[in-house]
Amino acid sequence: MTRVTVEDVEGVFAIMPTPATPDATDPACMNSVDHEESARAAAALVDDGVHALMVNGTFGEGATLTWDEHRAFARTVIDAVAGRVPVFVGATTLNTRDTITRASTFADLGASGLLLGRPMWSPCDDATTLGFYRDVAAAVPDLGIVVYDNPVAFDGKLSPRVYAGLSEIPQVIAAKYPTLGPSFLADLEATGGRLRILPVERDWYWAWRWAPDSITGCWSGSASCGPHTSVVLAERIATGDDAAARRIAEELRECGRTFFPQGSFELFSRYNVQLEKIRIDEAGYLRAGPCRPPYVDCPPEYAEGAAESGRRLAALSARYAAERAATASGSRA
Amino acid sequence: MTRVTVEDVEGVFAIMPTPATPDATDPACMNSVDHEESARAAAALVDDGVHALMVNGTFGEGATLTWDEHRAFARTVIDAVAGRVPVFVGATTLNTRDTITRASTFADLGASGLLLGRPMWSPCDDATTLGFYRDVAAAVPDLGIVVYDNPVAFDGKLSPRVYAGLSEIPQVIAAKYPTLGPSFLADLEATGGRLRILPVERDWYWAWRWAPDSITGCWSGSASCGPHTSVVLAERIATGDDAAARRIAEELRECGRTFFPQGSFELFSRYNVQLEKIRIDEAGYLRAGPCRPPYVDCPPEYAEGAAESGRRLAALSARYAAERAATASGSRA
Amino acid sequence: MTRVTVEDVEGVFAIMPTPATPDATDPACMNSVDHEESARAAAALVDDGVHALMVNGTFGEGATLTWDEHRAFARTVIDAVAGRVPVFVGATTLNTRDTITRASTFADLGASGLLLGRPMWSPCDDATTLGFYRDVAAAVPDLGIVVYDNPVAFDGKLSPRVYAGLSEIPQVIAAKYPTLGPSFLADLEATGGRLRILPVERDWYWAWRWAPDSITGCWSGSASCGPHTSVVLAERIATGDDAAARRIAEELRECGRTFFPQGSFELFSRYNVQLEKIRIDEAGYLRAGPCRPPYVDCPPEYAEGAAESGRRLAALSARYAAERAATASGSRA
Amino acid sequence: MTRVTVEDVEGVFAIMPTPATPDATDPACMNSVDHEESARAAAALVDDGVHALMVNGTFGEGATLTWDEHRAFARTVIDAVAGRVPVFVGATTLNTRDTITRASTFADLGASGLLLGRPMWSPCDDATTLGFYRDVAAAVPDLGIVVYDNPVAFDGKLSPRVYAGLSEIPQVIAAKYPTLGPSFLADLEATGGRLRILPVERDWYWAWRWAPDSITGCWSGSASCGPHTSVVLAERIATGDDAAARRIAEELRECGRTFFPQGSFELFSRYNVQLEKIRIDEAGYLRAGPCRPPYVDCPPEYAEGAAESGRRLAALSARYAAERAATASGSRA
Repeated sequence: MTRVTVEDVEGVFAIMPTPATPDATDPACMNSVDHEESARAAAALVDDGVHALMVNGTFGEGATLTWDEHRAFARTVIDAVAGRVPVFVGATTLNTRDTITRASTFADLGASGLLLGRPMWSPCDDATTLGFYRDVAAAVPDLGIVVYDNPVAFDGKLSPRVYAGLSEIPQVIAAKYPTLGPSFLADLEATGGRLRILPVERDWYWAWRWAPDSITGCWSGSASCGPHTSVVLAERIATGDDAAARRIAEELRECGRTFFPQGSFELFSRYNVQLEKIRIDEAGYLRAGPCRPPYVDCPPEYAEGAAESGRRLAALSARYAAERAATASGSRA
Repeated sequence: MTRVTVEDVEGVFAIMPTPATPDATDPACMNSVDHEESARAAAALVDDGVHALMVNGTFGEGATLTWDEHRAFARTVIDAVAGRVPVFVGATTLNTRDTITRASTFADLGASGLLLGRPMWSPCDDATTLGFYRDVAAAVPDLGIVVYDNPVAFDGKLSPRVYAGLSEIPQVIAAKYPTLGPSFLADLEATGGRLRILPVERDWYWAWRWAPDSITGCWSGSASCGPHTSVVLAERIATGDDAAARRIAEELRECGRTFFPQGSFELFSRYNVQLEKIRIDEAGYLRAGPCRPPYVDCPPEYAEGAAESGRRLAALSARYAAERAATASGSRA
Repeated sequence: MTRVTVEDVEGVFAIMPTPATPDATDPACMNSVDHEESARAAAALVDDGVHALMVNGTFGEGATLTWDEHRAFARTVIDAVAGRVPVFVGATTLNTRDTITRASTFADLGASGLLLGRPMWSPCDDATTLGFYRDVAAAVPDLGIVVYDNPVAFDGKLSPRVYAGLSEIPQVIAAKYPTLGPSFLADLEATGGRLRILPVERDWYWAWRWAPDSITGCWSGSASCGPHTSVVLAERIATGDDAAARRIAEELRECGRTFFPQGSFELFSRYNVQLEKIRIDEAGYLRAGPCRPPYVDCPPEYAEGAAESGRRLAALSARYAAERAATASGSRA
Repeated sequence: MTRVTVEDVEGVFAIMPTPATPDATDPACMNSVDHEESARAAAALVDDGVHALMVNGTFGEGATLTWDEHRAFARTVIDAVAGRVPVFVGATTLNTRDTITRASTFADLGASGLLLGRPMWSPCDDATTLGFYRDVAAAVPDLGIVVYDNPVAFDGKLSPRVYAGLSEIPQVIAAKYPTLGPSFLADLEATGGRLRILPVERDWYWAWRWAPDSITGCWSGSASCGPHTSVVLAERIATGDDAAARRIAEELRECGRTFFPQGSFELFSRYNVQLEKIRIDEAGYLRAGPCRPPYVDCPPEYAEGAAESGRRLAALSARYAAERAATASGSRA
């Protein structure tokens, strides 16, 4: 087996939650993973056309699974996907050595790579950040790394200088990018094309408008509310159908309008897990289940905004599923 | 054995580092704890008069030890102290269940309690924070809890509302408080005397001036640079010797002047582990050793400020050690 | 006449609003000052024992008066006070030259000095800040200067380095200090006793506990809700009656509890003028009147918190007024 | 004369400084405007093809001119332009009434409109912001208003809700937009096309890629370093020549690389006036002259970054001037 490379970064990198058993909010529950739903959901996403899976980031509860659960879940997903698309498993911990231990295990289980944020007890400066990624890459050289750039979770946006340094690490093939902001072009430039920046699906069209040669994929949390929208968007972008891609981009914006409490990412971040799982459960494409402690509470008005977003995304994905089915049956005819 | 209570919170709660072997910066080193020095240092602090030990907070590298190391280190310290003073072990993790697992182990090893910050991947709101502490207290009811209030590490200062809620949890007996700020009086008031606020040793006199009945102890990282200054300060405060206590407070301020880069706690927090360990090694009272990854780099000018602080603290502690020796021999004469 | 000096900084520096006519919220109103009430209020505050007056800071609407109004109001107040206590007039503008022009006018009108914040269109660094104060002091050498340290209005807290520099300017005799925070001791130390730090009345006792020799006065916005509380506090502190001073400090804290929306100074600052004027009008000691544009709107729940604070302050001041009257008649008997 | 409308917002809105006499840094200098250079520079910009002039924003020293100077300068510029392009004069003050007084004067002098930021002593909430703009528009109904959205100068970014409200005021025809950030699309959407968002020249291409129908012009401070680059960019965008426009966009980015100290807009904002005037003087297209107090100091390394940016912009503008000349002579041949 050969390592996943930057050339493999194309299309929809779907992020799925870690489906939970009904008692998962109880701190005494020590087997909270719903493995059956995990396997079913992973297979469904792949069947429906996503191009890679990423698990155990923020709403994938990389922070709140026990290590036993985390490992078992990774195995379930990797086995369900069975090599059809690359699988990137979250390996963020509080330090370099724990991350390496986990990464080695994921490698043994057959993961393609890691979704990897930096330690966040103390904020990492640029040198510490790069040292961390270099050490992990050296320790598990056969895994591709998708860097997780989340300014709230990991104490600040990665700088262009860090992007430049990351781009020199061969295993680093992509970055899960936050909402497009003022340093996007500088970050992109700093990568020199040696790693791919993955915007979120609702930003994909806009990033692609700016950098059609460099932006070849997106990450998508909303794919877990139904992946058809993102998959069709990928097709439109791949064929350069600007007008159709823009229409989807605007539909996705419309679906996201109620998702961020008061329009604030900072506020959202306090309830990231809860809001994503509420949204997914409302959409009904897969069963995320309850949240693991301590991230279990959520103000009701924020929850309702997430649920509304889930309903809109489900409807949109259903529409694109129908289009795809019609096209497919048309082309068969 | 009875649980440690709020009445036991008195005097100097010394924080010691986790002494490291020479190869501890190497991510491949999996046994980085210098147990001999750990035992010696813990015993020395107790012999020299500190009133409690706290380990595995930030500069105690609670974030960067492996679980195997962490557990072994806790055993070493608890055994070395042998019940002479309470020992609080760091149990902060990314989630409730891992914290409970670790806390149970520490209870089995004979720890008196926990030094406990909240999960910090996603910021915790007030309800999530209180839920976390309640769940842990319920799971390990025989351990006292020193809440760790560090606004940078744990995503924001605890609010008076959280202090009020914490004060209703019987096991929560104290809070390791950050630098005195505008909400100190409100926080103190919110505790209703049901838990003790522990300022840092250099703030102790000032907090005591404001609340002589409530402020009965301090936490002290500088005790690891020589504990005699803090111990004498405790005596002066206990006897109400205001002038002498103020003199020590001002001496401690003088020792701290070069410690915070550009006077900034935010900046300090990026190099918290490194700067504390440099300071301690320069002071020479115990051997902290190198830092564990990823927190290994530090700008040289910040390092020099920490070293200078260590030299000043060592000289000051030596002077108070001599005074104590003279007094002791005088009182024996 | 000799310039006011650092020795004159003692007691209650009351801040009064700029009483407004009923049509003052109308942008077309060009004579919005209620001169009769202005003269009456200034005289009342002095009659009731405050030790200095400060006008035209933030809630004194230094920002929103026209220059014609501002000048006329300053004359009214200075004339009403008639030299019985020093009067400091706000002269903050967007630049050095406008401030000097205004300051010269106030000097001609007989002001003792200026209440002076720095320009705030672009944030001032330390050198720019010191240059500004030096230029003004050189241009109006006979005026004392009370530096206005307000981190929200003037883009950041003054640093200890700025306090050190300010203390070298002979005309700078005091600083209107924000809520006590972590740099208070460093700021105080930096002044070398060459200028006085004035905490707000509700912080006065606490600052005095820390630095009994240096903290000789306070600023008081709540004096405009009835000055008797602050004046009695000044007497208690002057005679070193710690227990009585602490009691008043706690009463003042109780009165302030509803004043800051959600306990936040940042949020308060968006409605500073409105909330202070609502509080004063509710207390009834003087008539502040409506606010001048653009600062006229205020969320009703914040307004109610301010009104409640006004009611409490009025009741407290009335109680201390009665005590003072009883004492006075007692001592006459 | 009819009021300037949203239809007139097209092309390069050049911002020019307020040229200063050699003694302008002296607080005693009361006639610091170099009127001859002001007239020459304004005419040169118009001769060289810019589509509108904006004066007396931040680096145009709207904050630090005296009112006498400001008025006289506005007259000079308006007269020099002589109606060939619209002129927008800065009218930001600390309050509504002063702004209206100044705006009326500018209207009398023949200005087309205002470049208008909100008062910034106390931060304005959304209602206060909208109230301010509504009051000004009502008072000077014949002036167009370019809203000045500068998050540092005016205490926070304007929200989509404010953009929606502004778009309902007929006189508000454009917004001078800050660096493209995450809320750009939401802001644009909120305007409903009733006002134009003007990005800075180096963002113009990118904004236009996203919203080709809505983004019809830019503001340009660098035009004062030579306007030919921006003017050619306007032509390329007008003709839809994407490749050529992108090339210029990348050249402009290259020129800006050294301009923002440490890549930070916050840091830049402390020296905005100084850095812009240094850049302009180094470029040599017009003579900005020294800065007015208090904004006179600037760290030398930041100054050098600005000078380098000026040299690059001058070279680039010269190249496009030559191209334009060649084309013009070619088309004449």
